[in-house]
Amino acid sequence: MEAKLHELKMRLIEINDLESAHAVLRWDQATYMPAAGAMARSRQMGTLGRIAHEKFTKATIGTLLDELELVCEDLDYGSDEASLVRVVRRQYDKATKVPTEFVAKLREHSAASYQIWTEARRDNDFDRVIPVLEETVDMSRQLANHFPGYEHIADPLIDYRDHGMTVSTLRHLFDELIGHLVPMVRSLENGNPAEDEFLHQHFDESQQLQFGEKVIKDLGYDFNRGRQDKTHHPFMTRFAGDDVRITMRVNPERFGPALFSQTHECGHALYELGIARGYDGTPLARGTSAGVHESQARMWENLVSRSYPFWEHYYPILQDIFPTQLRSITLSKFYNAINKVEASCIRTGADEVTYNFHTLIRFKLELQMLEGTLAVKDLAEAWHSSYESNLGVRADSDRDGVLQDVHWFAGSVGGAFQGYTLGNILGAQFFEAARKAHPEISQDMRVGSFDNLHGWLKHNIYRHGSKFTASELVERVTGSQMTIGPYIKYLKAKYGEL
Amino acid sequence: MEAKLHELKMRLIEINDLESAHAVLRWDQATYMPAAGAMARSRQMGTLGRIAHEKFTKATIGTLLDELELVCEDLDYGSDEASLVRVVRRQYDKATKVPTEFVAKLREHSAASYQIWTEARRDNDFDRVIPVLEETVDMSRQLANHFPGYEHIADPLIDYRDHGMTVSTLRHLFDELIGHLVPMVRSLENGNPAEDEFLHQHFDESQQLQFGEKVIKDLGYDFNRGRQDKTHHPFMTRFAGDDVRITMRVNPERFGPALFSQTHECGHALYELGIARGYDGTPLARGTSAGVHESQARMWENLVSRSYPFWEHYYPILQDIFPTQLRSITLSKFYNAINKVEASCIRTGADEVTYNFHTLIRFKLELQMLEGTLAVKDLAEAWHSSYESNLGVRADSDRDGVLQDVHWFAGSVGGAFQGYTLGNILGAQFFEAARKAHPEISQDMRVGSFDNLHGWLKHNIYRHGSKFTASELVERVTGSQMTIGPYIKYLKAKYGEL
Repeated sequence: MEAKLHELKMRLIEINDLESAHAVLRWDQATYMPAAGAMARSRQMGTLGRIAHEKFTKATIGTLLDELELVCEDLDYGSDEASLVRVVRRQYDKATKVPTEFVAKLREHSAASYQIWTEARRDNDFDRVIPVLEETVDMSRQLANHFPGYEHIADPLIDYRDHGMTVSTLRHLFDELIGHLVPMVRSLENGNPAEDEFLHQHFDESQQLQFGEKVIKDLGYDFNRGRQDKTHHPFMTRFAGDDVRITMRVNPERFGPALFSQTHECGHALYELGIARGYDGTPLARGTSAGVHESQARMWENLVSRSYPFWEHYYPILQDIFPTQLRSITLSKFYNAINKVEASCIRTGADEVTYNFHTLIRFKLELQMLEGTLAVKDLAEAWHSSYESNLGVRADSDRDGVLQDVHWFAGSVGGAFQGYTLGNILGAQFFEAARKAHPEISQDMRVGSFDNLHGWLKHNIYRHGSKFTASELVERVTGSQMTIGPYIKYLKAKYGEL
Repeated sequence: MEAKLHELKMRLIEINDLESAHAVLRWDQATYMPAAGAMARSRQMGTLGRIAHEKFTKATIGTLLDELELVCEDLDYGSDEASLVRVVRRQYDKATKVPTEFVAKLREHSAASYQIWTEARRDNDFDRVIPVLEETVDMSRQLANHFPGYEHIADPLIDYRDHGMTVSTLRHLFDELIGHLVPMVRSLENGNPAEDEFLHQHFDESQQLQFGEKVIKDLGYDFNRGRQDKTHHPFMTRFAGDDVRITMRVNPERFGPALFSQTHECGHALYELGIARGYDGTPLARGTSAGVHESQARMWENLVSRSYPFWEHYYPILQDIFPTQLRSITLSKFYNAINKVEASCIRTGADEVTYNFHTLIRFKLELQMLEGTLAVKDLAEAWHSSYESNLGVRADSDRDGVLQDVHWFAGSVGGAFQGYTLGNILGAQFFEAARKAHPEISQDMRVGSFDNLHGWLKHNIYRHGSKFTASELVERVTGSQMTIGPYIKYLKAKYGEL
């Protein structure tokens, strides 16, 4: 057992190193790579993807798993050994269904389409991404078709990121959720809108970044084990257990988006940084699903850094940094402004109540593209129509429309957005459990302390990495399956007050 | 032939992609990586090195080479096909002599020792590097011993970087060179020393960088295909034909070192950027030897950016940027200051006359470590003694002593420094040939134009990449073998005037 497990781990670490190198190349492409480097870079990323897939799908790994599974029958389900074998088996069975050359092509295509997107977005030129996005849709369909027997063509793609979820379960979930949100939005529309003009003025870029850096340090992000850089679209990436980086963008004419994207990405990073050290280099060492990952990001972004107790501590600090802009603004006015509910065009800047409409719009458009009921060339207009019918707004440009998010231009259509809504729901559910265990969490925030929350998350969620599936984890942590109850309760309490 | 050559190239491109990824990981380690990321990073670099070596040393490549060599007998020596086969064969025969596991261990060790060096240098703590440098010396010896039949243990290590050179040829070369330099230094010591205190005052870091950026753009460096970042030790690195980056360091209390390291690294980069596009992804697409590479770096650093005509154009621009510091300093006073001959402790900041003593000191110490006549623990003191006996100076610290250069802490002892002196010699020889072809080159510099020089270098040197060995190239370009004549003539003319 020992020897077999050791051999499996050595092989997994080699594959992990190739994937980590791939991640460094992608991070470099997004942060610092000169534009002309893109062509060779996509080939390099294709090569790394191909070699990693080749090594992972070798029959030797299958044989090792067969042998180890026999031994694992006598081990606890939650033991590190049994969990490693179980998780690797699930990934192995998926990976072996997909030809290596297809994986290499998809990696190469993803890197190339990312580059085209950055330029098309800058120039507000949807036409430029049409051919590349058509290919992405086509490749996403091909990928799904390597997993026959699905009910909806998006199901295998969704399963990659949120194991166990399907189009059908997600449609039910969205229906239930939207049923609660529509009346909330209506009733908030009838109230007095919060005044937030003061957020729309000049806030020096480097001072915004410094403030955000201070905040995320307090939340627990360790700059000795990470860093932040600027990119077109914020993201978190893991190169190793001790090198988990985040990126962000800053609008010097507005306070809010930069900070909330910092606390969001910080949430992702805290999860990765908190995974048990012993898992490093194996597939256990990553967040277990898109939904659980987003639960961490959305929790720190919203339930923490858009909360009143949080700003009781940080608002005076922020006022000191931006005295001319904020001196005359009271805490409660500031709090109302950063939580203003208003239909808008940009997902990452949306308030908590309208946010899920943004994911729903994308989720539906993805499905239509995959079904073939929406042609890519019609996507930009379909985007605008969806926003009009769901949120009553229309972006001035495709830059703030279909080109705003990177996801479809980073290689995948299908499964890219449901994680955010699952995250909103799970984040509230986890937070409720955390507060049950540590009722002092809100009180802690008033003094800028997050140790109880961070400690609870680390113990109950982070350290497990991918050991448990999302639904196993929710059950373990909250005693029940995923439910929208806590999320709706949280929104009603917060926005009832406002 | 076509099919075999295609297969060889596809295999080489795959290996190149792994090596490029390795280079990105090293660049990231030197520029942006958080400190705690170092341990996993060195393992990742070991993995990439191992896989690349495994793939390159496969018997299939040997068989392909055997077959292609038969066909190449009918081709011109300088044809792309014959040259590729010849160069790959040379590298293949070397690579297959070294076990893959040793290569992986060496890569891992290099990355780890780099990290220890950055911290030891910062803390001026030579003791901290002793164990790691002992291991480097030991591994360098092991590497050499995979190539039995050498006259001196450093010969195989030197051959890696400067094919055809040996300890014996280099000792003769140094003897000849030093014979000329010693009387020059003596006679300059007896003259009036140039006044250069004004270079030692505050020069804003970002303004220094901006000025350097303007200069290297003018020299021909394309920021669309490269970029500059700050590191502990400046270097150039190639990720692809369209992604060749440089790094530099800036001392805000002194004008000179940053700029001259920028033009130095720019020289390296222009070489790589000028290699024929068709070679990209193959071993032809890199500079042919350390000596030829340094000839380009040292030429742009010294023969161009420390020349009088160069500053006739740039000095007024520099004065505009730093008016308080330079307003009252005449061009000729400035020129004398940046060319002041003075024994000093830092190689990269040394004047052109004393520079070669710095390489000689390192060359001798390397040999002694490899021979076993100098223990690593005694190296710091041996360094100081060498400086005292060769240059009459002694650094205040090990930071400015043995810890100043990265080379021995990036994985190799042996062959690391002779390239600089070969570069000084070859740079002058090439420059003389370029001026014979384009006598207007100095005149061009007076108006900030470098097209003739750049064009000549591209045509005669850059585009060939590794097609010709250093000695073949010198012969082709100058009609003679390497000779110190032009270098000594250049130094005498320049420093006779001063």
